[in-house]
Amino acid sequence: MKSIEETLQASVPDMIAWRRYLHRHPELSFEESKTAAFVADLLKQWGLEVRTGVGGHGIVAKLRGASDGPTVALRADMDALPIQDEKSCEYASSVPGVMHACGHDAHTSALLGVAKTLSSHREALSGTIVFIFQPAEEMTPGGAMGMIEEGALDGVDVIYGIHLWTPFEVGAAYCKPGPMMAAADEFVIEIKGKGGHGGLPHETVDSVYVASQLVVNLQSIVSRSTDPTQPCVVSVGSIHSGTSFNVIAESAVLKGTVRTYDPALRMQVKERLETIVEQTCLMNGATYTLDYKLGYPPVVNDAKEAERFYRAATWAMGTDGGRTAPLIMAGEDYAYYLEKIPGCFMFVGAGNKTRGVVHPHHHPRFDIDEASMEHAARLFIAMIQDYMKENGTRA
Amino acid sequence: MKSIEETLQASVPDMIAWRRYLHRHPELSFEESKTAAFVADLLKQWGLEVRTGVGGHGIVAKLRGASDGPTVALRADMDALPIQDEKSCEYASSVPGVMHACGHDAHTSALLGVAKTLSSHREALSGTIVFIFQPAEEMTPGGAMGMIEEGALDGVDVIYGIHLWTPFEVGAAYCKPGPMMAAADEFVIEIKGKGGHGGLPHETVDSVYVASQLVVNLQSIVSRSTDPTQPCVVSVGSIHSGTSFNVIAESAVLKGTVRTYDPALRMQVKERLETIVEQTCLMNGATYTLDYKLGYPPVVNDAKEAERFYRAATWAMGTDGGRTAPLIMAGEDYAYYLEKIPGCFMFVGAGNKTRGVVHPHHHPRFDIDEASMEHAARLFIAMIQDYMKENGTRA
Amino acid sequence: MKSIEETLQASVPDMIAWRRYLHRHPELSFEESKTAAFVADLLKQWGLEVRTGVGGHGIVAKLRGASDGPTVALRADMDALPIQDEKSCEYASSVPGVMHACGHDAHTSALLGVAKTLSSHREALSGTIVFIFQPAEEMTPGGAMGMIEEGALDGVDVIYGIHLWTPFEVGAAYCKPGPMMAAADEFVIEIKGKGGHGGLPHETVDSVYVASQLVVNLQSIVSRSTDPTQPCVVSVGSIHSGTSFNVIAESAVLKGTVRTYDPALRMQVKERLETIVEQTCLMNGATYTLDYKLGYPPVVNDAKEAERFYRAATWAMGTDGGRTAPLIMAGEDYAYYLEKIPGCFMFVGAGNKTRGVVHPHHHPRFDIDEASMEHAARLFIAMIQDYMKENGTRA
Amino acid sequence: MKSIEETLQASVPDMIAWRRYLHRHPELSFEESKTAAFVADLLKQWGLEVRTGVGGHGIVAKLRGASDGPTVALRADMDALPIQDEKSCEYASSVPGVMHACGHDAHTSALLGVAKTLSSHREALSGTIVFIFQPAEEMTPGGAMGMIEEGALDGVDVIYGIHLWTPFEVGAAYCKPGPMMAAADEFVIEIKGKGGHGGLPHETVDSVYVASQLVVNLQSIVSRSTDPTQPCVVSVGSIHSGTSFNVIAESAVLKGTVRTYDPALRMQVKERLETIVEQTCLMNGATYTLDYKLGYPPVVNDAKEAERFYRAATWAMGTDGGRTAPLIMAGEDYAYYLEKIPGCFMFVGAGNKTRGVVHPHHHPRFDIDEASMEHAARLFIAMIQDYMKENGTRA
Repeated sequence: MKSIEETLQASVPDMIAWRRYLHRHPELSFEESKTAAFVADLLKQWGLEVRTGVGGHGIVAKLRGASDGPTVALRADMDALPIQDEKSCEYASSVPGVMHACGHDAHTSALLGVAKTLSSHREALSGTIVFIFQPAEEMTPGGAMGMIEEGALDGVDVIYGIHLWTPFEVGAAYCKPGPMMAAADEFVIEIKGKGGHGGLPHETVDSVYVASQLVVNLQSIVSRSTDPTQPCVVSVGSIHSGTSFNVIAESAVLKGTVRTYDPALRMQVKERLETIVEQTCLMNGATYTLDYKLGYPPVVNDAKEAERFYRAATWAMGTDGGRTAPLIMAGEDYAYYLEKIPGCFMFVGAGNKTRGVVHPHHHPRFDIDEASMEHAARLFIAMIQDYMKENGTRA
Repeated sequence: MKSIEETLQASVPDMIAWRRYLHRHPELSFEESKTAAFVADLLKQWGLEVRTGVGGHGIVAKLRGASDGPTVALRADMDALPIQDEKSCEYASSVPGVMHACGHDAHTSALLGVAKTLSSHREALSGTIVFIFQPAEEMTPGGAMGMIEEGALDGVDVIYGIHLWTPFEVGAAYCKPGPMMAAADEFVIEIKGKGGHGGLPHETVDSVYVASQLVVNLQSIVSRSTDPTQPCVVSVGSIHSGTSFNVIAESAVLKGTVRTYDPALRMQVKERLETIVEQTCLMNGATYTLDYKLGYPPVVNDAKEAERFYRAATWAMGTDGGRTAPLIMAGEDYAYYLEKIPGCFMFVGAGNKTRGVVHPHHHPRFDIDEASMEHAARLFIAMIQDYMKENGTRA
Repeated sequence: MKSIEETLQASVPDMIAWRRYLHRHPELSFEESKTAAFVADLLKQWGLEVRTGVGGHGIVAKLRGASDGPTVALRADMDALPIQDEKSCEYASSVPGVMHACGHDAHTSALLGVAKTLSSHREALSGTIVFIFQPAEEMTPGGAMGMIEEGALDGVDVIYGIHLWTPFEVGAAYCKPGPMMAAADEFVIEIKGKGGHGGLPHETVDSVYVASQLVVNLQSIVSRSTDPTQPCVVSVGSIHSGTSFNVIAESAVLKGTVRTYDPALRMQVKERLETIVEQTCLMNGATYTLDYKLGYPPVVNDAKEAERFYRAATWAMGTDGGRTAPLIMAGEDYAYYLEKIPGCFMFVGAGNKTRGVVHPHHHPRFDIDEASMEHAARLFIAMIQDYMKENGTRA
Repeated sequence: MKSIEETLQASVPDMIAWRRYLHRHPELSFEESKTAAFVADLLKQWGLEVRTGVGGHGIVAKLRGASDGPTVALRADMDALPIQDEKSCEYASSVPGVMHACGHDAHTSALLGVAKTLSSHREALSGTIVFIFQPAEEMTPGGAMGMIEEGALDGVDVIYGIHLWTPFEVGAAYCKPGPMMAAADEFVIEIKGKGGHGGLPHETVDSVYVASQLVVNLQSIVSRSTDPTQPCVVSVGSIHSGTSFNVIAESAVLKGTVRTYDPALRMQVKERLETIVEQTCLMNGATYTLDYKLGYPPVVNDAKEAERFYRAATWAMGTDGGRTAPLIMAGEDYAYYLEKIPGCFMFVGAGNKTRGVVHPHHHPRFDIDEASMEHAARLFIAMIQDYMKENGTRA
């Protein structure tokens, strides 16, 4: 009988083939019907218990081990982005304006590789593996919440997820205990002043001035109101007000983002921003509307599972294969799973400077070093094995 | 023989007819060929020495009195505006998108009324009257400078000009010694920062922040750097920067106006603004371009001529007919004449709330109470007579 | 019989003697008992109806003319300042730390000169003259209000007052219609934040930052909220906060002044300042106390009485003797009289560069050109005569 | 023969006695002559090679093990603070105004305990121990630099230091890889404007306004110019300007602190601050002096030595005895040693809420739980043993 490793090795060409197929046939968030069907068919072939249509096009598939034990979930996401693929390779997107520019095709394929491999090795599993294929990671509010509401985590003890990441070179994996990816919130402020003649400011409420003072006042959130050891950013990305050099503007619109890692700090910043907007407008006689949209929460890894990562990655990737991730400014709705149960999210290097695989995520020429899929699959398996070994008596 | 007053009265229907004709046939700035021909024909009929094509379509016409004496210039402007006339009366504009929405038709007609009247009373004039019909008051750099360069003021001792003004009720005239109308300058600032990810401000130069800090810093010009007894306004009318909530903006554009009355203060404000823009950008690592365009200078009336106005207006308009004007925020290229020789600029009430003549200048329903033309003509004559009486021995 | 002018000339040595006596014996605000006794004695000698103890040490004395007519009040102030006289002349102050450093000794003496002169010429007066010698002009809330409350203006038709002024050269007088001297208000703001470690700003409310933001925000009052044609100043004169470089300050104290001429604007600025202080503190989590003390109101001259000044000053001081005053930033409780009845306040030049009389008011070497007293007295008499001539039929 | 542990236990009463003696006889920075003599005498008794007068009153003592091996340095500091001891216990300071309010007496005693213990166990040491007793940790520029210059680290492979810390409860130890204690720099800015009348701001350069704008501008360093994942604080602790409500201030003085952990960031903040001060002053016509004093650099622990700490602390303090330290805002000149060679700095809990040992460092009632000295000594020994075991082959 083959070893798990041998089976995994045998699945590598499949993963590449699946990934290229999915790359050619990308589907936008919440529209992943064909991708889901493709995934479900394969999982059924391998004998898993497959539940489809979970929180949209989501799939929850169970693989029961030979003996009892804990339940470990693994998650991949399936959706693509509204970007025109500019690559010219044979597996380039065949759908105009839609592209797997974030690697979800490879996430799905790597997780399929894990499913295929382990379905041949139930004897090695003391417990159950839950495979979660999630829709709509790219579009707020994301597909994770819906799947959780419809039971994706029921009975699950721990969850692992992986993002292939081209800013990291292929061959290493990254994780860290605690916060790792930012909460990325969004705000729109519309200031309503009172327009008038540029030479008669006293008859107006000058929206340009109010908006400008507001931008300056907002700086104090980070400089004075937040713990210096807690990363926090408040950026106003755009400001638009007025039409003419000699007419005082009636209104102004500002848009911006807030990035935090600590959940308490996140709500504190929201409150400070609300207060500063309110008082700045009141001070100057303006009114306003503030639309503050909470994006995905921060991805906060369980400390114990992050420790497990170091062990598992050393095993899966070799010495120096498990590294400490820096804080990543991007957001992930994987965060919702970690709000419910322990687990961790990991990055697996997918860039390759030698081979020109250097484009950042969401770039029209984005591609990955496909060897990263094998790494991801092996890391998933290593995490499962380590967890089951530690928690085997639990079941 | 008729008195001057009787002749003036007889000319009133002419003034109304001329004005309505011109109102129907408006011409844009620097395109006043037919208007100029119309004016020149009449002046020639009345025996004046007419010089055409002065500084564009400008006309300089001389009327020599029976005896020697000083030379007094009177000025009217002839151009119309790119506004669609929304009136439905029979004299509404027949030219689509062009309209006498500022009363220059009536200025021209009133001055023609003066020319016709005085051409019948040379015996009463000890000196020379120079009639200046100017093109292009509405469009920077204006027609005044060109006419001056081509000799319109040669040998002229004093100059008078009148603006009919609907915010003032018909029946009164307004002037004041010293500054009366503002210098209205204009600036455009383009700030060049360095764009980037909204979560990574330290890798950028945040144009939204730089522009906002600049707007706040500019407030100090008026609050700290200018004489509190000298009116001064610095307004930023528009600010535009950035396109997205989570991307730090690469650049920003601000447009604004500066209003002053005192010429020295005007240049001081320009310098302060230049300094603040420069240092604010330098402080934050941004570069910039600043386009500071000096508009018309302030209209500064000669103190002695403003005194003459009070006497003349009392005579021309009756008791309480000569009033002190407030500072007017609008600009006028008449200011250039007053930079060369003594004189004054006057406002003659042309609004009539009872009759619904209430629209402000540059409004698509702008109209005047036509009685104001007679008032303007009589005020011109009164100014001439007072001046010649005082300066008669000079010649 | 002597003419009024001859009598006035004869009184000039008296005025100088009185002034020198008073200069040697200055008394502080609300303590002018001996000065008042000195004045009252003289007035009684000349036959005036003298009422003492009006609003403190104030004196109201009436001189009835031979025939009926209007009632004209003249006002002088009597108090000195807590300044050590540094002059060494024989009439230098004999009271340590007290000095007539503002010329009130001369105001009193000039008005005594008028009283003495006119008491010999009742036949020339058709009406009544009320002489007001006021205490405590130098100390808020001033002596004027108390005298008014106790009837000093009862039955008075018009009031005139004069300030000798060393920044103006002797030989000319100054006035202007409308606002002439500023309302000078005062504020003290105490901000209460929350102190703490300099490295832990998020555990504090940083008073230095709140106070600084407040100073910046206050600039907008003048730059955005007040009519540009209305002089207005908001200055923060001092700011004090914190004791150490590495401790965040618990509190901050700011002191400042507001200068305005228009009464409505004055109250509007007070409201804007209150709003900005409140919202700036609220925005940052600080509390505050604001002590806004209204000083004397602006001195606003009656337009008609200012016209009278030009006539009277030409008569009293010679051609070019009556000039238009600039706006004076200092305050005067004479303003309270003008809030009740028509009148005007005038400046009479008292400086003399040739003779070294150049020190500004409140300077320890302050002195006047004593010829200014004769000018002031003659200007008072000219104002009375002009007024009585115009209003003689009224009585 | 006793075990090392048995010998250490036997030394505990000595450590307490030494500490109480030193506590009663504190000496200020750079004046530690008697303390040094006390230390040197003991070390000589135990047979160490003692070098005195190193970098002031510093002592470098060597204990050679039975076999060859690496050289490990241990460091304690000896100086006290200019604070009046408010305790009333028998070992309270006998020197008025001088007190061991930071625990250096205990640092010295714990290190003496290590020396005494290990001097009886040379057979267990394969290598050399260098004991560094340092003067003047409390006073910039500190005693560490001088000792390094005079050879304290010559031939040393690794260095360990411990701070007893009352904010942490007795029984645990703390360390972390990388930056742990802040660089605490200091700045004084003196702004020179131009004073004048509060009502005439345009004749002045308003120091209160310039200083306030500067404080606001400085906020952008942390909010815009520094990596959000790198802790950084810029605090202005005090601002003083002006004396009177109606006089514009001539000058202003601001004092503040900068806290950073990353050396490159530290210099970047210094540059940003210099630029902002320069441009803010230039913008407003003010001049300035800026005194920016670099304090101690950040304490940056070697990653490998921090890992060793976790192992050693578990051994020395029991399970859960080795914890990850938070970032500590205070500074330490121990940082200079770590700039030269690998090593780490550790905190050992010395507070005890149950027994009322709760006062923070530099407090007049500061005291420690003396059991912390035994912990510190045992942790030092554990670090040595772990290091020698790992690096034994090296010698």
